Amino acid sequence: MQIGMMGLGRMGANMVRRLQRDGHECVVYDINPASVEALVKEGATGAGSLEEFVGKLAKPRAVWLMLPAAITGKVADQVAAFMDKGDIIIDGGNSNYRDAVDQAAKFATKGLAFVDVGTSGGVWGLERGYCLMIGGPDDAVKHLDPILASLAPGADHGANPDKAAGTAPFGYLHCGPSGAGHFVKMVHNGIEYGVMAAYAEGVNILKAANSGKADRSADAETSPLSEPQYYQFDIDLPAVTEVWRHGSVIGSWLLDLTASALKADPALAQFGGRVSDSGEGRWTLKAAIDTGVPAPVLSSALFDRFSSQGESAFADKLLSAMRYAFGGHLEKPKNGA
Amino acid sequence: MQIGMMGLGRMGANMVRRLQRDGHECVVYDINPASVEALVKEGATGAGSLEEFVGKLAKPRAVWLMLPAAITGKVADQVAAFMDKGDIIIDGGNSNYRDAVDQAAKFATKGLAFVDVGTSGGVWGLERGYCLMIGGPDDAVKHLDPILASLAPGADHGANPDKAAGTAPFGYLHCGPSGAGHFVKMVHNGIEYGVMAAYAEGVNILKAANSGKADRSADAETSPLSEPQYYQFDIDLPAVTEVWRHGSVIGSWLLDLTASALKADPALAQFGGRVSDSGEGRWTLKAAIDTGVPAPVLSSALFDRFSSQGESAFADKLLSAMRYAFGGHLEKPKNGA
Amino acid sequence: MQIGMMGLGRMGANMVRRLQRDGHECVVYDINPASVEALVKEGATGAGSLEEFVGKLAKPRAVWLMLPAAITGKVADQVAAFMDKGDIIIDGGNSNYRDAVDQAAKFATKGLAFVDVGTSGGVWGLERGYCLMIGGPDDAVKHLDPILASLAPGADHGANPDKAAGTAPFGYLHCGPSGAGHFVKMVHNGIEYGVMAAYAEGVNILKAANSGKADRSADAETSPLSEPQYYQFDIDLPAVTEVWRHGSVIGSWLLDLTASALKADPALAQFGGRVSDSGEGRWTLKAAIDTGVPAPVLSSALFDRFSSQGESAFADKLLSAMRYAFGGHLEKPKNGA
Amino acid sequence: MQIGMMGLGRMGANMVRRLQRDGHECVVYDINPASVEALVKEGATGAGSLEEFVGKLAKPRAVWLMLPAAITGKVADQVAAFMDKGDIIIDGGNSNYRDAVDQAAKFATKGLAFVDVGTSGGVWGLERGYCLMIGGPDDAVKHLDPILASLAPGADHGANPDKAAGTAPFGYLHCGPSGAGHFVKMVHNGIEYGVMAAYAEGVNILKAANSGKADRSADAETSPLSEPQYYQFDIDLPAVTEVWRHGSVIGSWLLDLTASALKADPALAQFGGRVSDSGEGRWTLKAAIDTGVPAPVLSSALFDRFSSQGESAFADKLLSAMRYAFGGHLEKPKNGA
Repeated sequence: MQIGMMGLGRMGANMVRRLQRDGHECVVYDINPASVEALVKEGATGAGSLEEFVGKLAKPRAVWLMLPAAITGKVADQVAAFMDKGDIIIDGGNSNYRDAVDQAAKFATKGLAFVDVGTSGGVWGLERGYCLMIGGPDDAVKHLDPILASLAPGADHGANPDKAAGTAPFGYLHCGPSGAGHFVKMVHNGIEYGVMAAYAEGVNILKAANSGKADRSADAETSPLSEPQYYQFDIDLPAVTEVWRHGSVIGSWLLDLTASALKADPALAQFGGRVSDSGEGRWTLKAAIDTGVPAPVLSSALFDRFSSQGESAFADKLLSAMRYAFGGHLEKPKNGA
Repeated sequence: MQIGMMGLGRMGANMVRRLQRDGHECVVYDINPASVEALVKEGATGAGSLEEFVGKLAKPRAVWLMLPAAITGKVADQVAAFMDKGDIIIDGGNSNYRDAVDQAAKFATKGLAFVDVGTSGGVWGLERGYCLMIGGPDDAVKHLDPILASLAPGADHGANPDKAAGTAPFGYLHCGPSGAGHFVKMVHNGIEYGVMAAYAEGVNILKAANSGKADRSADAETSPLSEPQYYQFDIDLPAVTEVWRHGSVIGSWLLDLTASALKADPALAQFGGRVSDSGEGRWTLKAAIDTGVPAPVLSSALFDRFSSQGESAFADKLLSAMRYAFGGHLEKPKNGA
Repeated sequence: MQIGMMGLGRMGANMVRRLQRDGHECVVYDINPASVEALVKEGATGAGSLEEFVGKLAKPRAVWLMLPAAITGKVADQVAAFMDKGDIIIDGGNSNYRDAVDQAAKFATKGLAFVDVGTSGGVWGLERGYCLMIGGPDDAVKHLDPILASLAPGADHGANPDKAAGTAPFGYLHCGPSGAGHFVKMVHNGIEYGVMAAYAEGVNILKAANSGKADRSADAETSPLSEPQYYQFDIDLPAVTEVWRHGSVIGSWLLDLTASALKADPALAQFGGRVSDSGEGRWTLKAAIDTGVPAPVLSSALFDRFSSQGESAFADKLLSAMRYAFGGHLEKPKNGA
Repeated sequence: MQIGMMGLGRMGANMVRRLQRDGHECVVYDINPASVEALVKEGATGAGSLEEFVGKLAKPRAVWLMLPAAITGKVADQVAAFMDKGDIIIDGGNSNYRDAVDQAAKFATKGLAFVDVGTSGGVWGLERGYCLMIGGPDDAVKHLDPILASLAPGADHGANPDKAAGTAPFGYLHCGPSGAGHFVKMVHNGIEYGVMAAYAEGVNILKAANSGKADRSADAETSPLSEPQYYQFDIDLPAVTEVWRHGSVIGSWLLDLTASALKADPALAQFGGRVSDSGEGRWTLKAAIDTGVPAPVLSSALFDRFSSQGESAFADKLLSAMRYAFGGHLEKPKNGA
């Protein structure tokens, strides 16, 4: 079937490619003409303006937005201005599910359907397929089924699930009314932060397994390592993360990626350790707070990212100031000099 | 090759079965004669006492202990008393790696090799193979290679890794000197706690996605839910955890198990929520503390288990006592009545 | 000067009493006539309806609302309906500062000033005075100065601060425009949760200092306590919290209350451990999340309260379900039987 | 009475001064002769060697060690070598309570008493007195009572507690057998970390209350701040921490110090934010872990210090590596350029 894709970055462009492989007709648009051009060469129909883009779509139109969360709402409004009753706007980005709830209500008054699709899979989605978490009106979601089924990974190799019993085994799921898709994707990312942090902390401990070999100064500002004999291991991090991939309880796709990254560079020298967050982890925590659900692991993971961005600096200065005030403790220089 | 297995519980018995499938000769012993009997029927050689058990093994003997951590040390000493120079004792249980460091040093003075093997795979290991993290002297570990290779899952289906480049892709790894195996397994389990908690917290948030539908009392002891319109989703937990298994970033074996458990009973009614911990999570945290490595996610996961065991009760009473003291706040009964 | 007080619960009634001690004239109202009656007997002017209440105030009127956060907004609107340009509405409750921002903007269009006053001091405020954190327009806050000064504790005994240099040493502070008062009070309470939890956790550890004396089962579901000789102390909790009050680094008013509560009943038997939260801790965390500031301690304190309310139950069941799925682990009954 | 003090740093020297004010006779020793000289000028009896130091003490001798934890054990052994049955060694430093348990047992075989005194009060102790948490044999502790009473702050101004009912109201407490003093001090410091972090996090959130005024980039790597209108406050941190000192629930000595530090320099420019920890926080957490007591707040506070020391760097690099691997996400430079 036909779909319009707007936003041809990493994610959007690959989704177009995956759809075209399955024979779908893609009309594409991006504010960057080069992005449009590239996909036209691969068989897509390009557009030079928003109006032209919408105009090339057959009714009922289906426009999939794959944009940064910060601008999706505004663009959706612009797209809607060119649309007619029965048309469908799909937000496949990392938007706040609350926007989907609000936008769906607003567009419903114009007869437009708003479908929010949480999309996981990253740069691997072209090859592996995208896991799709969908919110929106039944009719619109049903109408989009061919597109959703093509984007999704499909059933496991060798499995033959009964689609009548649900699409989850095929990698896409209608989770509920508008907002439910982004809500589920939001929590997915919240979990993702927690899982990533669990691996990262564990590997960091493995890395420190040889710290008993290092000299340690004996002053009042340094906690003594009383039993250095138990920290004499030089752990091969790439090998350990590789072995965990085979039969252990913690095998996962994120572990696969971890092992690959450590194999490529055990020191991870190309990274500085400033970890971004793109919103969902924050929103997940807010949902936990609103609903009174404890989420200490997910919040610890999020706050570590904030710290990695330097945001604990003032709090830490204040701790040093208090220590100086009550105990005369001076800060220890980095090298223990 | 021949191996002696002592401790024929869930793990030990299945390891014997997996080894026998590969043609290894297993001599088995357990304080419970019925456990021995069961494996004898499947082709193992049984023993009625520790002395008989060790006596049936050919030199250099290799005895694999698969016992609760609390008794492994004592039993290892008893086994060692019957052994000779060149023999090997393997601890495959969830022992503290520090015991392995100490025991290896002690046994080395008698000429015995001590090999610690962290073993992951649980009840599925018989079928999937066990991920093995190994510490100990090179000779002993090399001698045991046929056993280790049989217990391990082996290479991925279709993969053909070069064993000379390392055994990690086959699911077992010699991680370093005695203690290194249990150290790596310890951190593995620490990570496991964190990953499990990330899923559990996330699913708990999904479950609360409909909390805007519930009435909420408006008193000074209850935080108001200011925007109930955003918490109107009835999420199908089995379906969501299933869809995440297909192409999402958080796909993992623990997620597979989560989806299965929720499919079998979405209310998890058979469980009371009292979560045990078997030691490794604690030791992982202690290692983090000793080496000064931050592990907020892993500690949050561990402490939640302690709380689930009722151990935050007194602290919580004290919080209520303070609230009463400064604000006259009375505790709210469970039903908000 | 004259002030109208609406909401004569624990806080409101005592604030009236404190103001009357200083010679201010209080007009009081509450939906519960008995509460009005009680204060009338102590010299206040009572009112039987909202309209009568506002009618008894001289212009420019000043109405102080001391109500549960969930209803303050609605009541403020009702009060405003009877007011005239130049009048002042004060919200002294634990409202969300965002409501103050919004309400101030709304009321400003009518010429009404909205002043938000975060009020700390609890049931002790009548005697000690209330710490006041104030947001709102300069004129209105200045106009209220006599009231604010009377409610506040005043300068420390023996101190003689220069009021021209600021009112903070007197226990009240104009923190900024509307919303700033409740924002500062919100963070105050967020800190309060963290400080309280620090004491509660520490005291709980002291209580466990004798756990080496207890028997401990030796099974695979129980982490062994390897060095019981170091946990043989029966700590006198009331005495320890008392001694900490004298010269230690952690002396505080919350510690004073803790020591009193433990002295009155070392077992805290009257409390069940279900700890409420009244909103500010949640909002503090949301502010931290919005602004990207790490707050792991404050969030841990909040989430422990949620857990104490039973909200981690499903997550914990899921952990047990996973443990059962991968390892066949059964939950351990509470008594270790 | 007479006391020998060894270790004349910040703490030890001031303790000598406070004792001398109360008429006690102090024999002093330090490896730095200048430190000895300074106190001799103030009336103390100096010694030039350990042997001379012990030799100048009358039997039963009482030697108080005020040394870094890392060397206390070794020095205690050296002192003990010159001592006789009935003599007393006091460890007033921040030693691990486990060392006190072990050392007391060892010295008991020689007839020496070992008394561990947790000492809080920092550089202010000279003036305010030191809060003393004491472990050791009854006879020895009783013998030292005049010294302990002089070091402690004494009863509150105006209070007249009954000493027969316990010494806690005077600021010192015999907490139990050897080790109990350092155990209680350890938990005291664990709490201290938590309380400090609660203030630091809260003040950091206040500092960010104006973040809605800043520009924010709109890209996929930056979480949007959706409601900047609620973050428009420029909070006066010195004034707010000052006002909280007067009548609020969170008044404390640490808050007093915080307000002073912020008043002296609101930017805390002299501090870099590298926060040391001196061991007790670590040991507190280990005790919590050993005894199965949840301590999420205290651990978060400790781990934040580790992070401030740069120890989360590798974990954070690994997070960035994973994000790059699954999503092609590049790290954002510090200035958002």
